[in-house]
Amino acid sequence: MQFTSERRLDDGVLEREFTLGEIPGILWTPASAPAPLILLGHPGGLGRMYPRLVGRARHAAKDGLASATIELPGSGDRPRSAALEEARADLRRAMAAGEPLDEIVDRLILPLVEKAVPEWQATLDALLALPEIGGPVGFSGGVIAIGTRLAVVEPRISAAVLFAGSFVPRSMFEEARQVGIPLLVLLQWDDEGNDRQAALDLFDAFGSKEKTLHANLGGHTGVPQFEGDDGGRFFARHLK
Amino acid sequence: MQFTSERRLDDGVLEREFTLGEIPGILWTPASAPAPLILLGHPGGLGRMYPRLVGRARHAAKDGLASATIELPGSGDRPRSAALEEARADLRRAMAAGEPLDEIVDRLILPLVEKAVPEWQATLDALLALPEIGGPVGFSGGVIAIGTRLAVVEPRISAAVLFAGSFVPRSMFEEARQVGIPLLVLLQWDDEGNDRQAALDLFDAFGSKEKTLHANLGGHTGVPQFEGDDGGRFFARHLK
Repeated sequence: MQFTSERRLDDGVLEREFTLGEIPGILWTPASAPAPLILLGHPGGLGRMYPRLVGRARHAAKDGLASATIELPGSGDRPRSAALEEARADLRRAMAAGEPLDEIVDRLILPLVEKAVPEWQATLDALLALPEIGGPVGFSGGVIAIGTRLAVVEPRISAAVLFAGSFVPRSMFEEARQVGIPLLVLLQWDDEGNDRQAALDLFDAFGSKEKTLHANLGGHTGVPQFEGDDGGRFFARHLK
Repeated sequence: MQFTSERRLDDGVLEREFTLGEIPGILWTPASAPAPLILLGHPGGLGRMYPRLVGRARHAAKDGLASATIELPGSGDRPRSAALEEARADLRRAMAAGEPLDEIVDRLILPLVEKAVPEWQATLDALLALPEIGGPVGFSGGVIAIGTRLAVVEPRISAAVLFAGSFVPRSMFEEARQVGIPLLVLLQWDDEGNDRQAALDLFDAFGSKEKTLHANLGGHTGVPQFEGDDGGRFFARHLK
């Protein structure tokens, strides 16, 4: 892990860009150290997502939590994948035409999960070696299939806020039953890039003894401000 | 409204029992006055429900809110209704036998709503005449059909936490579309005395621009402690 830039935000949060091999990422740390860590999931495109990511990181820092994120495979400045681009285009076409999506969702999401999850785990290895990161670790955001797989395979993640804002491969439902960590699942009730019933079925499938669903009126990007506070309190309960 | 008893709880909350005509009720007020008011809904049986009601009232008092509740028609010390008792017995039988419930739910809930809602409104008249109650007013709890009707017909109620823990008459879905106040709907995912899909359909039907669903794993009485805090913050946002 190589730090490539460093700046102090006006609220005292230290923001550092890094690369892990060829993967770009960002780490935000509060003044207090060592800090628990939130891995910030997102749909890909660090540049486009930066304003929302830094907002979430600053919010977490107020609760004494560090945050980190990495670029997804095939997004942002990382090399494009022809198969991924084709699956994305197919999904848009099938949605517009009202055609079945399952096979396309599998082609789009499953390879992404396969590739991204080990990258998040390698990032976690590197971050937990830093003296300013103490753990425990939470995952917050989407892609929900990535968060689900991480919750199953990565024992260092002890709680997750999962954003049900992307299509879910059918095979994920079986995987969800193996999740045991406390979960807060966010669902935008009118999300155009999601299947509400599949999100409810996925919530039902999670094996966790403590799981809470927060559903709010509105579309994909309309998550209300107060859900940031609720997520903060969820992590405060489980990471401290 | 006649106060029939008065005592100060150890946290300084003043608890007074009252009668409004033949209806028994309880009012809890915090030290600060005039206070906003929460009407505490419940499934009937003030004696049996008292421990949970006083817990909710003390929690609200910490946020500077007064709370009040009244007995439901046909419950607790109020005269039994033969029709209500028969509908209750029929519901238990039909649930055990896996038979259709709609007609029985209508017979059980609709007369209760018709009778209870004007009683809550009369209670509100009396409470808002007290100098220690200032408004605004929220409704919190069940029976969800009573809360829904109140939200439609009673303009003095400006926000509601509705507990989806009872069966919902089909006619309530049309009524739900007329609700416009901010809502927080609580759903116990494995509630044995409820129909999960009907609760989700009801949430979908509410006309409010701000509506949030909190669903938690567990049965009817398993609402997690932290939902009390969430409800408090919801009312703090909307009643202050």
